[in-house]
Amino acid sequence: MALITPSRRLRRTPFSDGVEAAGVKAYTVYNRMLLPTVFESVQEDYHHLKSAVQVWDVSCERQVEMRGPDSARLMQMLTPRDLRGMLPGRCFYVPIVDETGGMLNDPVAVKLAEDRWWVSIADSDLLLWIKGIANGYRLDVLVDEPDVSPLAVQGPKAEDLMARVFGDAVREVRFFRFGMFDFQGRSLVVARSGYSKQGGYEIYLEGGDLGMPLWNALFDAGADLDVRAGCPNGIERIEGGLLSYGNDMTDDNTPHECGLGRFCDTQTAIGCIGRDALLRVAKEGPVQQIRPLVIDGDPLPGSDRPWALTAGGRSVGQVTSANYSPDFESNIAIGMVRMTHWDAGNSMEVHTPDGTRQAVVRDAFWA
Amino acid sequence: MALITPSRRLRRTPFSDGVEAAGVKAYTVYNRMLLPTVFESVQEDYHHLKSAVQVWDVSCERQVEMRGPDSARLMQMLTPRDLRGMLPGRCFYVPIVDETGGMLNDPVAVKLAEDRWWVSIADSDLLLWIKGIANGYRLDVLVDEPDVSPLAVQGPKAEDLMARVFGDAVREVRFFRFGMFDFQGRSLVVARSGYSKQGGYEIYLEGGDLGMPLWNALFDAGADLDVRAGCPNGIERIEGGLLSYGNDMTDDNTPHECGLGRFCDTQTAIGCIGRDALLRVAKEGPVQQIRPLVIDGDPLPGSDRPWALTAGGRSVGQVTSANYSPDFESNIAIGMVRMTHWDAGNSMEVHTPDGTRQAVVRDAFWA
Repeated sequence: MALITPSRRLRRTPFSDGVEAAGVKAYTVYNRMLLPTVFESVQEDYHHLKSAVQVWDVSCERQVEMRGPDSARLMQMLTPRDLRGMLPGRCFYVPIVDETGGMLNDPVAVKLAEDRWWVSIADSDLLLWIKGIANGYRLDVLVDEPDVSPLAVQGPKAEDLMARVFGDAVREVRFFRFGMFDFQGRSLVVARSGYSKQGGYEIYLEGGDLGMPLWNALFDAGADLDVRAGCPNGIERIEGGLLSYGNDMTDDNTPHECGLGRFCDTQTAIGCIGRDALLRVAKEGPVQQIRPLVIDGDPLPGSDRPWALTAGGRSVGQVTSANYSPDFESNIAIGMVRMTHWDAGNSMEVHTPDGTRQAVVRDAFWA
Repeated sequence: MALITPSRRLRRTPFSDGVEAAGVKAYTVYNRMLLPTVFESVQEDYHHLKSAVQVWDVSCERQVEMRGPDSARLMQMLTPRDLRGMLPGRCFYVPIVDETGGMLNDPVAVKLAEDRWWVSIADSDLLLWIKGIANGYRLDVLVDEPDVSPLAVQGPKAEDLMARVFGDAVREVRFFRFGMFDFQGRSLVVARSGYSKQGGYEIYLEGGDLGMPLWNALFDAGADLDVRAGCPNGIERIEGGLLSYGNDMTDDNTPHECGLGRFCDTQTAIGCIGRDALLRVAKEGPVQQIRPLVIDGDPLPGSDRPWALTAGGRSVGQVTSANYSPDFESNIAIGMVRMTHWDAGNSMEVHTPDGTRQAVVRDAFWA
């Protein structure tokens, strides 16, 4: 691995001092912000995440805030998911598409009030798309990036840790719901959500000055729970089938190709900019789709580029994320596979940096 | 410095194999793509850039292409610079602003034809803004990111090297003009431009398959010119007053604050989305502006955050880029300074990681 040169452009976060003190070893850059990737090692972090509790600096999940009378209309223009039934206090996973149905982002939308929304974005400057649409359609809405930095608390002991800091009421927050909880006199959005399958919360810290006090409060309260600094884990997220925008899908892909067809209510999502294109896709169905794959042989290295999938010498897709799973004792992968080969049990060649291996489609993700 | 974890999301380029073989030591991430920052060392790279010739992988200067009958109208909507006099074959530096006059990017616009433009972007997903505007205003234009990866050839011997690969006609290309030049049967845009003050060219490689052939052709032709792999240099660019979007300015700043008022023809740039706001700015003038600063004392480290500028205990701005210049034997910096202190010769305190120093405003950049 190469080094990363520090610069203001790769923004620090309200929790960076804590992350550095915890001994972060590597980063990625996500929304022009530093996102830790390794503390002990990817494998040690993985075992710890699945057995204890971790605090993750996911400030890079920047928020786009929409405020004003047209904000609900604008939100529905952005996504093919029907938002009519969504009440304040709910979080919805929403594919965001352009006019051709290509994915621009896959954020979580947080409905704070009828006229106030956040979208908690994956890695693209969705702010610019939303500002452009709001301007072009002359909508009565204010769009900006507020000073909000999510801190995730993930792992089987997350609920116990959170209850110590925010009180037992936090145990009552249901999955993809949020409540307002007090921390040092400020009311914060706390949602039951996060980029792992181990359970947990995301605290939307509003006001960076409270960053280190919040970080320290969690560590002080959780010493006996073996709380550690952590980060989204490249093994665990593949086991759980959690997709990564920019890795597993890009603006070339429709939601249907990404297995997100269930979030597309193209018949009823009136106003969605990509609706015409997605009605066509929904009628014909996609010709390639994301699938879990097992790759045989010794543990594979991570990858910085897609690995080609072939069968009989012809391209049938590509592997976009792969890692070795200690718990499942095999190489696990996410790939985009053509219709001819996407059924479970199908076998094909995958061209890895360590040579050609066999890849087999599974019927489901691992966890 | 920490390590950077490889992933598909941090895109490789058509020249990455060459960059790695040349021994790249560190990267930054720019437009979700790897941009080298160090080969030998920042100081050795600096001396070499100013004395010989370097080949830079600046693929991260992604292009946004606009094609179709409304492309010129769209281009004028994006920038306050009056584009009416711009002929095909010209490159214009164009601030891009939102409806409040805030800078969204500071690309170079390349006019390929009346109805075909590229903008060669700094670090923000300008594609999404342009797509949103085109969609919202229902313009008859196609907007996308083509397979174009710029390769820069920079340094006092750049012209000699380029002439060996593209022929002597490349010597006739004037500053911020471009010509079409043949390489292995393909016609490429070659502009006299680049992110240094040492002179040179940018080759807009269309079609990534020709990446390594082009890279190798330049190195084969330039062995006796001491051609080396290089990258935008953090010292040289401050000496030359070359601003970095995301470091020296953000969407909080107007072009006038960035010293780019000369690129704002707000009276005549009819159609520019930010025109109303910038007419107001032009009338009142900015209250802070980018200035070159000298900082006293021993060589300072680079920074990953702005350094506060104070005078008499009050905030008067911030330093956004700083480095030690071997040639000028002093700490050189770019900062945003309030009107009360922006005149040359004014002195103030700068709060660096190495303690408080004195900073003095200069009347001009160094080179």
